Amino acid sequence: MNTVHERPFDLLNKSIGQQVLIRLKNGDDIRGKIVSFDVHMNLVLDGAEELEGGGNTKAKLGTILLRGGNILFVSPA
Amino acid sequence: MNTVHERPFDLLNKSIGQQVLIRLKNGDDIRGKIVSFDVHMNLVLDGAEELEGGGNTKAKLGTILLRGGNILFVSPA
Amino acid sequence: MNTVHERPFDLLNKSIGQQVLIRLKNGDDIRGKIVSFDVHMNLVLDGAEELEGGGNTKAKLGTILLRGGNILFVSPA
Amino acid sequence: MNTVHERPFDLLNKSIGQQVLIRLKNGDDIRGKIVSFDVHMNLVLDGAEELEGGGNTKAKLGTILLRGGNILFVSPA
Amino acid sequence: MNTVHERPFDLLNKSIGQQVLIRLKNGDDIRGKIVSFDVHMNLVLDGAEELEGGGNTKAKLGTILLRGGNILFVSPA
Amino acid sequence: MNTVHERPFDLLNKSIGQQVLIRLKNGDDIRGKIVSFDVHMNLVLDGAEELEGGGNTKAKLGTILLRGGNILFVSPA
Amino acid sequence: MNTVHERPFDLLNKSIGQQVLIRLKNGDDIRGKIVSFDVHMNLVLDGAEELEGGGNTKAKLGTILLRGGNILFVSPA
Repeated sequence: MNTVHERPFDLLNKSIGQQVLIRLKNGDDIRGKIVSFDVHMNLVLDGAEELEGGGNTKAKLGTILLRGGNILFVSPA
Repeated sequence: MNTVHERPFDLLNKSIGQQVLIRLKNGDDIRGKIVSFDVHMNLVLDGAEELEGGGNTKAKLGTILLRGGNILFVSPA
Repeated sequence: MNTVHERPFDLLNKSIGQQVLIRLKNGDDIRGKIVSFDVHMNLVLDGAEELEGGGNTKAKLGTILLRGGNILFVSPA
Repeated sequence: MNTVHERPFDLLNKSIGQQVLIRLKNGDDIRGKIVSFDVHMNLVLDGAEELEGGGNTKAKLGTILLRGGNILFVSPA
Repeated sequence: MNTVHERPFDLLNKSIGQQVLIRLKNGDDIRGKIVSFDVHMNLVLDGAEELEGGGNTKAKLGTILLRGGNILFVSPA
Repeated sequence: MNTVHERPFDLLNKSIGQQVLIRLKNGDDIRGKIVSFDVHMNLVLDGAEELEGGGNTKAKLGTILLRGGNILFVSPA
Repeated sequence: MNTVHERPFDLLNKSIGQQVLIRLKNGDDIRGKIVSFDVHMNLVLDGAEELEGGGNTKAKLGTILLRGGNILFVSPA
C-alpha cells in the first residue's frame, strides 16, 4: 500500500533511547526517553516530565507506562 | 463493492512526499509532508506545523507520528 | 436478514461520482462528490466544502479523505 | 440464549418499508422509512426528516445512510 | 471462571416477557417489557416509556430497539 | 507474563456472594452483592444501592445487570 | 519491531508487589501496590488510595480492580 516500504511505527523504533515530546488528546504535553513500545502505541518513557504551555517542566513523573490510546502525536524532541 | 476499483487510502498513497492539511477531531489543523501511513491512518509527517484559524503557523512540530483515530479528514494541501 | 437483498452501503456505491451532503457527529455539514469509499465508511470527496447553517459555503476544502467514524449520516444532495 | 428464538434485529427486518422514529445519542429525532440495514445497525431511510421537540418537521433530509453507532433507539412510528 | 455457573445475561433471559427498568449512560430511565436481546445487550422492549426523575411517565415510546452500548444497567422492575 | 499466576478477574471470582463497592466512570458509586460476572466485567448485583458522596444510600436499585464498560473500579466492601 | 526486545508491559511485571502511581483519564490519581494485571491493563491494587492534587491521601479504597481503559499512565512510585 506504501511504495516506500516505510511504516509509521518505524519512527518509534528509531526513537528508542531518545527524547520524544508527546501531545496527549487532553492537550497535555509529556517529554521523556522512549524505552519500549508495542502495537497499541503503549510507551514506556524514562525521565518523563509534564510540561507547561511554554515547554517548562511542570512535574517530574519518572518512569511511566503511557497507554497509547491517549496519544495525539509523538515527536522526536 | 466499488465499481471503479479505487479506495480511499489511495489518496494517502498518492500523497506520499507531498504536503497535506489534516483537520483533527478537536478542531485543530496540522500541515506537513506525508512520510508514511498504515491501515489505522496513523501518519508520519515531516515539517509538521500547527495552524491558526487563518492558516498561519502557530507552532512548528517537526517530524510527528500522528495517531489516525484523532483525524477528521486529510486533504492534499 | 434483509428480505429485499439491499444493503446500506449500496447507497454509497450508487452515489459514486455524485454530490452528497454529509452531516458529521460534531454537527458540521460537508458537501462534495464521492470518489471512493471503504467498509469503514471512509470517503474520498472531490470539491468538498464546509457549509454554514443555511447551506452556503463556509470554506472550500478541495479533495479530502474523511474518516468514516466521524459521520452521522450521508445523503445524496 | 433466548428461549423464544426472537432477536432484536427482527424488529428492523419487520420494519422494512415502514416509517420508524430514531432517537440519536445526541438527543435528535429522525423519522423515515427503512429501506435497508446491516449488522452495525447502519440504516438507509427514505423521506427522512429531522424532528423538533414537539414532533414537527424541522428539516427534510430525503434519503440518508445513517451510521448505526449514533443510534440510541429505533421505534416503529 | 465463575464457580456457580451463572452468567450476567441469565438475568436478561429470565426477564423475557417481564418489565425492566433501564438506566442509560446519559442518565435517562426507560421502562418496558423485554421481548428479545442479543450478545451486544441490544434489547427490544414493548410498551416502553421514558421516565421522569420521580419515576412517572414522561413519554410513551411503544416498541423500541435499544442499542446495548447506551445502557448503564438493566433492572427487573 | 505474570509470575505469580494471579489475574485481576480472580478478585471478582473471590467476591461472588460478597458486597462490593463500584465506582462508575460518571463518578457515581453503587454497592451490592456480586451474583455473576463475565469477561466484559458485566456484573449482576443483588441488593444494589446508589450511594451519596458520604456513602449513605441514595436509591435502592434491587437486582441489576451492570455493563462492565461503565466501571472505573470494583472494590470488596 | 523493537530491537531491545523489551515491551511496555514488562514494567508492570517488574512492579508486581510494588507501589505505583496511576494517573486516570479523568485526571484523578490513585496509588497502590500491584497484585496482578492482564493484557487490557486491568490491575488489582492493594492498599489503594485516592490522592489530592498535592499527593496526600483523599480516600482509602483498599483492594480494587481497576479497569485498564481508564488509565492515562502507570508509574512506579
